[in-house]
Amino acid sequence: MWPVLRLLRRGLSTAAPRGLVYEKHGEPAQVLRLKNLAIASPANYEVRVKMLAAPINPSDLNMVQGTYALLPHLPSVGGNEGVGVVAEVGHHVSSVRPGDWVIPVDAALGTWRTEGVFSEEALVRVPSDISIVGAATLSVNPCTAYRLLSDYETLRPGDSVIQNASNSSVGQAVIQLAASLGITTINVVRDRPNLQSLVERLQDLGADHVITEEQLRKPEMKDLFKNCPRPRLALNCVGGKSTTEMLRHLDYGGTMVTYGGMAKQPVTIPVSALIFKNVKLCGFWVTQWKKDRYQNREEITKMIRDLCDLIRRGKLLPPPCTEWPLEDFSQALRDAQTPFLSRKQILIM
Amino acid sequence: MWPVLRLLRRGLSTAAPRGLVYEKHGEPAQVLRLKNLAIASPANYEVRVKMLAAPINPSDLNMVQGTYALLPHLPSVGGNEGVGVVAEVGHHVSSVRPGDWVIPVDAALGTWRTEGVFSEEALVRVPSDISIVGAATLSVNPCTAYRLLSDYETLRPGDSVIQNASNSSVGQAVIQLAASLGITTINVVRDRPNLQSLVERLQDLGADHVITEEQLRKPEMKDLFKNCPRPRLALNCVGGKSTTEMLRHLDYGGTMVTYGGMAKQPVTIPVSALIFKNVKLCGFWVTQWKKDRYQNREEITKMIRDLCDLIRRGKLLPPPCTEWPLEDFSQALRDAQTPFLSRKQILIM
Repeated sequence: MWPVLRLLRRGLSTAAPRGLVYEKHGEPAQVLRLKNLAIASPANYEVRVKMLAAPINPSDLNMVQGTYALLPHLPSVGGNEGVGVVAEVGHHVSSVRPGDWVIPVDAALGTWRTEGVFSEEALVRVPSDISIVGAATLSVNPCTAYRLLSDYETLRPGDSVIQNASNSSVGQAVIQLAASLGITTINVVRDRPNLQSLVERLQDLGADHVITEEQLRKPEMKDLFKNCPRPRLALNCVGGKSTTEMLRHLDYGGTMVTYGGMAKQPVTIPVSALIFKNVKLCGFWVTQWKKDRYQNREEITKMIRDLCDLIRRGKLLPPPCTEWPLEDFSQALRDAQTPFLSRKQILIM
Repeated sequence: MWPVLRLLRRGLSTAAPRGLVYEKHGEPAQVLRLKNLAIASPANYEVRVKMLAAPINPSDLNMVQGTYALLPHLPSVGGNEGVGVVAEVGHHVSSVRPGDWVIPVDAALGTWRTEGVFSEEALVRVPSDISIVGAATLSVNPCTAYRLLSDYETLRPGDSVIQNASNSSVGQAVIQLAASLGITTINVVRDRPNLQSLVERLQDLGADHVITEEQLRKPEMKDLFKNCPRPRLALNCVGGKSTTEMLRHLDYGGTMVTYGGMAKQPVTIPVSALIFKNVKLCGFWVTQWKKDRYQNREEITKMIRDLCDLIRRGKLLPPPCTEWPLEDFSQALRDAQTPFLSRKQILIM
């Protein structure tokens, strides 16, 4: 209980608003500066929000580096997700009121700050009876996992899904959401020194099978499919060899959805898989998905409600996080870029 | 008129039935033998057909070689498409009668023969007021082109489609079907000594743009899109570099359908095209498409009717063909395997 109280106290303090600002693209540790921010009172359709917590995701770093598909006007505050508490609302604001928790609907809000004034429609309310970390890490990775499992194949209990990068935040959310639906997951991870502890951690989340990239390539993989149906859905966040190998195990007519490219290599598919195995390939980008539903957001609110229900029931845990006070952002950025750390770095305001 | 009469006379002759039989897989010229066939009278639901003409398609050769995704029980008669005239029907046959022209619904019927007894449901009637060559080459390539243009993107007059292998039989059918629908085609071909005559021939069929693989890679391609919308649909029969380059020009959210792999190289897609350009990839195999509709064949008969209408109105010409008497099959096979010949070899029974 104590950390939450501490967070709330800090989050609601009256210190001058501050944020991690960058004026040009570059290495995050080089270009991000903690600066005081001028915050005006909210206009008619605006909301003043005191941020509580905001994680550091890989795509946040790519945005600062200038290598992402979506770039803000500079200068800008970094960070795309997080949770805040409404401090003050404009006259015409109807969807939230002071004390409500809110998360961004859209990317590029600039969440690495203590406080901000945002348009009402840029925010969506979340219940405040879930953990701050759960709420702060909800809008990118669990939403991606939710859409990946919902929008491409009609999956029924007993069906299976294969994914790589299974230890990523999306991967862990996929494991838990699939487990809550009775869907079997085949989870590919990179080999590493502490593999067994990773396997156990993913199994604790509900992973049915955890295999390494090396095992994925071996003929023994066919044994796995003696007691498990071929996956109708493959989720790819890697590219290169990992993806081609994963595709080989996809069921006839199945779909592979690519939502990331950690290996920085393209996706390569044998022509025969397309023609004779009838596999389909497509991509998913949660930012675009939400942008397309910005005006008519029923699907967004249903998804947030479903995910918060799972969080409340302990069926969807946030990724293991290390909390950092905002002023220690340099160490947080360093750890966010360290491979195999298996923890998300989260800034506490 | 004379050749048709000659064909009909030959096709309806009473000589002993013969066919190109192979007892093992291998090089077609080595393993195919012209043999007498024992033909029984048709049973209740069977039809005796005198074949008129049957083309030699690349997939026919792959089937004889044993490298195709669908292989018949051996010994077998080669050939997957062609047209014949019904000579005799079993007691319960209702869909065709003597004198009707028929083509195979399905692959692996063994069409390189003078005569055969087939189940009624393996055949579909075609009108006999189109050319024999048009009917004989209808069931694989024009059907593929028809489905490629119908089933993946909703195309309207003025929209554009890009394809490679544009001089293939499917490619030529795509050009003509698209032209009849008011859809602009961007047609990629391999460079060759007689390029200009090929360009003119495809333009005569209705091609709007004909470009070489080299031109496809050049920055000047963007000039083409000043007066032509980005294609919503890309049709791929090549693989390798050709496919990746073609994909670059696809519109946001467009679809690439792979129906062949002439370059014997896989399809390689940048991860960013999937995630940020939202392109979709899938495959098409006309054999499977028809198999899936074998029992409920409304879509098949509508397609055949539409295609025969276009043939009758001169809007869909068969590919340039060289006709060979069945006994000259060795030379026909040789020419069917000669690159850049730009003519289809067709056996006349």
